Amino acid sequence: MASPPRLEVWGVTGMPEVGRAADLAGLIADAVVAQGDELRDRDVVVVTQKIVSKAEGAMAAIDADDPRGHRGVVEAESMRVLRRRGDLVISETRHGFVCANAGVDLSNVDAGWAALLPEDSDRSARRIRDGLRARAGVEVGVVVSDTFGRPWRRGLTDVAIGSAGLAAVLDLRGTDDDRGRELHVTEVAIVDELAGAAELVMGKADGIPVAVVRGAPAGWFRPGSVRDEIVRSPAEDLFR
Amino acid sequence: MASPPRLEVWGVTGMPEVGRAADLAGLIADAVVAQGDELRDRDVVVVTQKIVSKAEGAMAAIDADDPRGHRGVVEAESMRVLRRRGDLVISETRHGFVCANAGVDLSNVDAGWAALLPEDSDRSARRIRDGLRARAGVEVGVVVSDTFGRPWRRGLTDVAIGSAGLAAVLDLRGTDDDRGRELHVTEVAIVDELAGAAELVMGKADGIPVAVVRGAPAGWFRPGSVRDEIVRSPAEDLFR
Repeated sequence: MASPPRLEVWGVTGMPEVGRAADLAGLIADAVVAQGDELRDRDVVVVTQKIVSKAEGAMAAIDADDPRGHRGVVEAESMRVLRRRGDLVISETRHGFVCANAGVDLSNVDAGWAALLPEDSDRSARRIRDGLRARAGVEVGVVVSDTFGRPWRRGLTDVAIGSAGLAAVLDLRGTDDDRGRELHVTEVAIVDELAGAAELVMGKADGIPVAVVRGAPAGWFRPGSVRDEIVRSPAEDLFR
Repeated sequence: MASPPRLEVWGVTGMPEVGRAADLAGLIADAVVAQGDELRDRDVVVVTQKIVSKAEGAMAAIDADDPRGHRGVVEAESMRVLRRRGDLVISETRHGFVCANAGVDLSNVDAGWAALLPEDSDRSARRIRDGLRARAGVEVGVVVSDTFGRPWRRGLTDVAIGSAGLAAVLDLRGTDDDRGRELHVTEVAIVDELAGAAELVMGKADGIPVAVVRGAPAGWFRPGSVRDEIVRSPAEDLFR
């Protein structure tokens, strides 16, 4: 019998405060070593949006005492507003994500600032992947994650807003099921499941903005991106 | 420095074919031991809907040669149809789940049958949890998972349709962020993230219908359920 598939998921502690133009790959590589771990080929490194936005300077100044300041940034970041209820805006961003407040976030940032979504989170993921290759000599997959709500289900989960070096969606269509019949639709959004698994070791207030998933099968690794594989166009979507 | 949070996720191989009235807890306990593993207190055991439905006899006979046979079962299982496109129906089930084809599934079942969602997946999870306590002497959390699509994002992910013995949603509202400001909304749907993490070691055609997540913090374990914590009522939902 083949040995059962097994993944390890662990948080990277001790990351310093991330400022503009920080070398994220270098900070991650150092923090991993400092906690007695190491990165290996085919690890998946999950990095939260917040530190990517900080490193890239994707921030907007707001008047912290003026609730309309936040709202104005949200409106500016929204391509299209889908729903409003009270202070909550569900909108589509220019990247094609549908999320609360266009991903504009006030938590864990300095007063007077809001964190925006990175301009191109797939590119951010590629940069971190390239940086970890240069810095630690490893070929890893990278996921940039953010915390989104969903319709129909309460609670938030972390999903991928960018990825590099691995399949975003693993296409199992056409694979025989265990009766030898063709499976109808089994396109698994593994980057979203990886982002969610990583969130489980990050918590929200623990200062753990990076996690590593080890044990992914070789077949997961190939060029891939969230924009090309995950973002659904409005024309294809039944709920816009 | 506290040691970094760490989870292990592993698949349970060698589960036999599950028939009606099968003792799922017994089969799981045996399969875990047969592969050289053991269950421990505070493991989370994730069980796919398919084998739960088979064990509970939540199946409907259909004429395999008549595509309308499947459609008829889908209509019968739908409380309310939200969208139709071609053969695809997005509907709300009597449990309050919104999903494709009301969760009616033809893959990995005998020809002439469709698997329905369990009548009460939280109860199913409680039974498995009680069975594992009786059989293996362990206090575990249990998640019953199924594979759902989402609006706005391509690809499917596994989510929880039932749970027992652990928080479905971990409420971090009011916890200070690392700036000492109050976080606005951070209710994390950990059962969905656990279901997704488990899917990563299950694959779809590998005959691995059970996975174990080890390393969950003690604070995750309390009475909880998907119905009470995850299912959003239509009145509260912005997209119905």
